[in-house]
Order: sequence, then structure tokens, then C-alpha cells
Amino acid sequence: MTKGADHIRLSLEQVRHLAEQPLLRCGISRDHADAMAEVVTLAEADEARSHGLYRILGCVAAVRSGKVDPVAVPEVTSTAGAVVRIDAKGGFALHPLRIGRPLLAERARQFGIAALALNHCYHFSALWGDVEPVAEDGLVALACTIGAHSVALAGGSAPAFGTNPLAFAYPRGEGRKPFVFDLSASTVAKGEIELRRRSGASLPPGWAVDEHGAPTTSPDAALRGAILPFGGHKGAALGLMVELLAGPLLGDLRSAEALAVDTRDGGPLRGGYLMLAIDPARFGGAGRLNEADAWLTALAEQHRPARLPGTRRHAARARAREEGVLVSRSLHEQLMELC
Amino acid sequence: MTKGADHIRLSLEQVRHLAEQPLLRCGISRDHADAMAEVVTLAEADEARSHGLYRILGCVAAVRSGKVDPVAVPEVTSTAGAVVRIDAKGGFALHPLRIGRPLLAERARQFGIAALALNHCYHFSALWGDVEPVAEDGLVALACTIGAHSVALAGGSAPAFGTNPLAFAYPRGEGRKPFVFDLSASTVAKGEIELRRRSGASLPPGWAVDEHGAPTTSPDAALRGAILPFGGHKGAALGLMVELLAGPLLGDLRSAEALAVDTRDGGPLRGGYLMLAIDPARFGGAGRLNEADAWLTALAEQHRPARLPGTRRHAARARAREEGVLVSRSLHEQLMELC
Repeated sequence: MTKGADHIRLSLEQVRHLAEQPLLRCGISRDHADAMAEVVTLAEADEARSHGLYRILGCVAAVRSGKVDPVAVPEVTSTAGAVVRIDAKGGFALHPLRIGRPLLAERARQFGIAALALNHCYHFSALWGDVEPVAEDGLVALACTIGAHSVALAGGSAPAFGTNPLAFAYPRGEGRKPFVFDLSASTVAKGEIELRRRSGASLPPGWAVDEHGAPTTSPDAALRGAILPFGGHKGAALGLMVELLAGPLLGDLRSAEALAVDTRDGGPLRGGYLMLAIDPARFGGAGRLNEADAWLTALAEQHRPARLPGTRRHAARARAREEGVLVSRSLHEQLMELC
Repeated sequence: MTKGADHIRLSLEQVRHLAEQPLLRCGISRDHADAMAEVVTLAEADEARSHGLYRILGCVAAVRSGKVDPVAVPEVTSTAGAVVRIDAKGGFALHPLRIGRPLLAERARQFGIAALALNHCYHFSALWGDVEPVAEDGLVALACTIGAHSVALAGGSAPAFGTNPLAFAYPRGEGRKPFVFDLSASTVAKGEIELRRRSGASLPPGWAVDEHGAPTTSPDAALRGAILPFGGHKGAALGLMVELLAGPLLGDLRSAEALAVDTRDGGPLRGGYLMLAIDPARFGGAGRLNEADAWLTALAEQHRPARLPGTRRHAARARAREEGVLVSRSLHEQLMELC
């Protein structure tokens, strides 16, 4: 944990206030700002800083550029069958997700499985934050959305699809943190390559290719070429799956289209979002949540030092509730200026 | 393509006959044998030989060992809401899948999304063969089942979960082959390591670890240790997801439990199976199938030599319809002996 003059310690209440004020000040409605500040605070608590307070800067920029409608009122356009569809009307995604999640849960319990589709939204937060509450409510959840158009096919030399995150959460029973993960289709976030370019650092081998498809450790060459999918052709297949599910399936943008309409303000991309929920009670697994929990607990114990996904985040969260979190002084100053 | 005295050329009709006769001779019912021979023939046509005729030997062995009920009559135990549940009653999976698929499609069209769960089945074939027909019928499909308990967590040294295949298919419109992939959570099939052990070959780096978690190229050490997940902790996360979805969620076996009850006859493992189907018409994407198809076509053209999943299989299938397929002479003899 970094400490000292570069960082200040804030309580989670202070983090939430620091997240919410700049959003309200730039004209984002209370509903949106509240949903966004909640998720950003959770990311800071979980030490998932790349999706924490830092993202507030991009959200404010995306409103100021005129890209995101700060007062968009999401409209539930359909609740036929097991599908809930919400038009986010060019606003941020978290407020419509708050509206959609209980409707999704209701339908999952009614039909055994259900889907929530958002259109025309701007999603900037970590997907684990979206699925974890669904699993805390006793349902299995799977979610995906389009990411930055920057990932090559295995053997390719140019972006073919987006970083396209996919998240999954499985309930472990009353009072237990769910099994949760969230992974992108790329070896690394595009921002990591940007950061190394700015600091003059080189890339580890295996992250990227140049415009001729040759492996490169140069951030400049990588940005002219493409990021590699994780796990070769398997990661690429999953990236294409997400691109199809969150784009064409929903009648929404593919990653290249999202990039083409983006104002490059540093904020999130426009696009679609899909979440599925499954009720274990309808599959014979309801009585087995404790059993799954016991299995996962034993796995974690028997396979050290290997860890299950989410372990580090949940441990950080427990600490943060007691001790608060460390926030970089420069980020704190940037946010205070926006207040 | 290998040719010559080691192989003989058979028409697809001959392959189907060669697959079906040994199954019928060992007492497998006509319904099961027909479904199994169809899928094995398709695998041979697609040059997916590891899931082709070779698997018939394991199926026959699994009946002879008394493990699989060759005349099991699957029972549809529930069709409430959007969930179809089938008890395979200890029989092979493909016949119940044939029964379940139209029920799944009906519910996906009624509710927008639906699920098919099989319990107590033996699945031996490639999952792409299960989801492709669903997408040819205009629905998006996702399927998974438990595989051999042999894969470590990233940083681990012992099997924590199974090879756990996951398949996805997306329709590309009338008369077009769907976008289809099928991937396991492991870098490689356990059988590949067995094959190298027998032939005295070493393993490429990155496939496996020894019992202390150290990277190894020794097949013996790998079999005492574990196979690595593809793509590090991301592949492991996906493997755990499949283990939860096809095991505990369905109230069925985890990979370690499936291994514990297995008779080691070389045939498939007992377990659960989950397939989801989504109707694009209910998500705004129905009119977009042609658009998705055009995008995938353009991707394939622009990103050569990189290929989309399924491309090679579909090209092989078109050739096989004209030319038939090459079958190894020794496998042919083994199957003829069983007829």
C-alpha cells in the first residue's frame, strides 16, 4: 500500500462526497450522480482505483463536451416476457441499471432466467460492480458491454473488436460475498499502454503487436498496431462474442462505430449493455448454494498461493470500512477544483 | 491433410454407418445411436477428428463397463417458465439434447431468453455441434458442461476444476453458417498430454505445471501436477464459471465428483449440461443479423491471415460433402471389429 505525502486518507463517506459533488456541479442529475458516486466509492473501497475516483474526471469531461446527456431520463421500453429493455437516452449507464436490476430480478424469479438490455448508454465503471448486487440478491448474473476498439484477432495486426468486458457473479448464500469476476478480452487496458507511452516505459512482451502484426514492446508501435487478445484465439473468440451480444444483438453500436461517434473527451463510449440473471431455485441448485460456497472456500484454502477472483477486492473492502482509503493528492486536488 | 496407405477415404454416409453400427451392436438404443452417429459424422466432416469416430470407442467402452445406460429414456422433468429440465437418467447427452432443443427454441421465442438443463448425462462430443443448430434456427446459443478435472488456478499446482468447455453460436441470417466457437478452459486437452507421454515427446512451455507449481515440459510431471488454464487467471475464472453453471447450479456433479464416480473406461464423464438460447427478435437485433454477418465477413477479409472461429471447420465441411473424408486405417479396423 502506498502512503505518505502523495496520498491522503479519506473515509468512504468522504470519497462518496468527493465523487458526487463534481458530478452535481457539472449539471448531472441527482439520480445519475447518486448511482455513479456509489459505484465509484465501492471501487475505491475495493482498491480497484482504475475504476474509482479517477473516472469522475472523464464523466465530467463527457458532459462538458456535450457527449453525454447529464439529465437523461431512462425509459423502460419493454418488459415483455423475460426481457427488460431500457433506453438510456444518451445518459450514463448506472442509473438505468439501478432501475433495471429489480425488474430483471423479478423476471428471473418468474421465468427462471431473464435478460436486461440497455441501449444508448455510457458505461464507465467496472462490470463486477454491476453483477455483484444481483448475486447478493441470490441470482446468478452475467453482464457484458463494448470496450475501446483496440484488440486484434490472434494473428492479426489491427483492431478488430473492443476490450469488451465480461462479468459473472454466483451467489454463495446469505451473508457471503458472491463469487465474482470481470475480465476484458484484451491482455491489458488501452490506458495502460497510453500510460507507458507518456512515461517513456516499454511494454512487457505479449501485450501488443505493431501495424504489421509483429510483437512489439514499443507503446507507440502498439498504438499504431493493436493490443493482443488474452489467451490467443480463445480470448479473441470471447471478445467477438461480447461484441455481438452488446452490439448487433441489441441493435446498438459495435466498438468501431462507438469509436467513430466518440468525441475523444476521455469519457466513456456510447453503446449497448446486456445482463442475464438466472434463478438457481429453478435449476435444482437453490439448496446447493452452501455446497458451492463450501467448495469455493476449500479451493481457496487448498490452492494457495493461487487466489479466487474477487478475493483481494473483498478483503480491501473490509479494510476500507474500518480505515478508509488512500487517495492520491493530485487526484484529490483535481476533484476539489471541480467542486 | 495426411493421405496414403495409413488412411482410407469414406463418404459421409459410410462414416455415419461406421459410427452407428458399433453403437447399435453394443446395445445402445436406436434414438441414442442415431443422435450420436449424426454428431460424430459432422465432426469428421469438419476435420474435428478428436471428436469424431475415435469417440465411438470410448462410448462403447462406457456401455461395456456398465457406466452408461445404453437404453436410457430421457425424461422432461420441467418446462415451467423459460426453463426446460431433462433428466438424462444416466444415458448419453445427445439424444436428450435433440429432445430439448426444440423445447428450448420454443421458450426462447416465447420469452426472449430460455435455458435447457440436462442432468445425469454423459457428454462426449464437441459443444459446437450442440449450439450450431440452434443458431441455424435463428437463435443465439451458449452452452457449457464439465470436463476432465485437470486444470490449475493461475499460480496453482494441482487440479482445481475441469477442462470445462464453453460454446457460443450467433446466427448470421438465412442460409449462412453461424458464427460458432467452442473453447475449453485449459491450454490443452488432457488427452494431448497423455499422447505425448506415450510417444515420449515433451510438452511445449506454458501447457502445464508440476506438483510444486513449477512450469514443466515433462508429460509425467504434468500428470502429477496440473494443466494450466488458458490466458492465466482469466481462463481460470471462466473455467470456474462453467464448473458452477454446469455443476452446482444444476444440482449436478463438479468435475472432482465426476472423476470420483468415473469407472476410467475411456468414455465420457457423468454430469450436468446447460444451454441458453436468446431470440434476437426480442432485443432489437433481429433486423441486424445481416449487418452482423456483413461485419463478420468484412473482419475475415480485412484481418487475414487471422481467421474467425469456425472458418476452417465450415470449409472442411463443404469439401467433405464433395470428397468424403480420410479416416485412419487403424481406427477403421477397430470400429469394424466392433460391428
